[in-house]
Amino acid sequence: MSGFVLHNYFRSSTSTRLRAALNLKGLDYEYVAYHLRKGEQRSQSYLAINPQGLVPSLQLEDGSVLTQSLAIIEYLDEIHPEPPLLPDTARARARVRALAYAIACEVHPVNNLRVLAHLKSAFGADDAATADWFRHWVRETFDPLEVMLAGDPRTGRFCHGDTPGLADVCLYAQVLNNRRFGIEMASYPTIARIFDACAALDAFARALPERQPDAE
Amino acid sequence: MSGFVLHNYFRSSTSTRLRAALNLKGLDYEYVAYHLRKGEQRSQSYLAINPQGLVPSLQLEDGSVLTQSLAIIEYLDEIHPEPPLLPDTARARARVRALAYAIACEVHPVNNLRVLAHLKSAFGADDAATADWFRHWVRETFDPLEVMLAGDPRTGRFCHGDTPGLADVCLYAQVLNNRRFGIEMASYPTIARIFDACAALDAFARALPERQPDAE
Repeated sequence: MSGFVLHNYFRSSTSTRLRAALNLKGLDYEYVAYHLRKGEQRSQSYLAINPQGLVPSLQLEDGSVLTQSLAIIEYLDEIHPEPPLLPDTARARARVRALAYAIACEVHPVNNLRVLAHLKSAFGADDAATADWFRHWVRETFDPLEVMLAGDPRTGRFCHGDTPGLADVCLYAQVLNNRRFGIEMASYPTIARIFDACAALDAFARALPERQPDAE
Repeated sequence: MSGFVLHNYFRSSTSTRLRAALNLKGLDYEYVAYHLRKGEQRSQSYLAINPQGLVPSLQLEDGSVLTQSLAIIEYLDEIHPEPPLLPDTARARARVRALAYAIACEVHPVNNLRVLAHLKSAFGADDAATADWFRHWVRETFDPLEVMLAGDPRTGRFCHGDTPGLADVCLYAQVLNNRRFGIEMASYPTIARIFDACAALDAFARALPERQPDAE
């Protein structure tokens, strides 16, 4: 056993990213679930682990805790370098991080559960309006992301070359999330192709929300 | 001259982050401005540089373009390692990245200009409602961020130790942004102290929006 404890939620997109990265590295972990819709991530016991009250967190062998999915994945890539989740040149790493952040900083934060809930409480947004909001922000990033991936010879079977990495775990988790809001993938053939390449791998399949112990 | 061209906007928080990082590294650059409120970042000429239509982008000597402020800063730290913007152990780097992402993935994306504009168009939010929205998301992250910084012995004069880095450029730019919405800093003494430590350095002062050529 790695001694890792993963604090997470089956349907959280950032949790899915991290599960896929742990699986790609061949690292096992104890699975602890927090039901976000019941607010379990705001319990005192979890706030003691992660004051932000967000999932995922990764607790290490010595009890110390890492937060923020992308920071944890960079850490895993540094301490368990094989297989690498970032390419081997600075220029290429900048590209992969930019693709990852396009999703992690532009799509996901605006569309996560707490933001959609706040739209309802602050503006009385109904389900149709929140779904429109979600789809708007997916399009804002997926339209250029498709161009950036399709038009770059560095794109391979995956976002960068023929092995999966940091950008792919973000893409995979976001596309899964999109399905809940009926995003049409026909406009995104390259993204769809890369998603399918991820989905065909056991490391990604085992990260699926519906395969987790807390899945409903 | 470094040969870098910085495509940016004086008041953009992500642009401020990157200017501070370039200044900390002692790297100069040609400054090219895009007026976000006039939509200049959506011009065909800029979309050819960055299909996302977002600032900042950094164009390198050979004309290639890097996007996403945090990906660019990681790149700068790799090719110009001195002074380092990330600490020298994996565990410490994970902490600094998590602090940076708490701002870059939780506060800024929900509060940037295009999101506030969309709140107005989608929900008819007036200035007071968008200001409430802004302050809500600052509090959601700054409350725990203050706890995470104040309660950790690794916090020094800056977010991590006594030299500024990746988390500090994010903190600095966000606090500047907060001022436009009247965020009261009395609840955040550690964040305020670190901001002041940054502001006292020339590298940060020269990154200030009002010191840029396109400042209004």
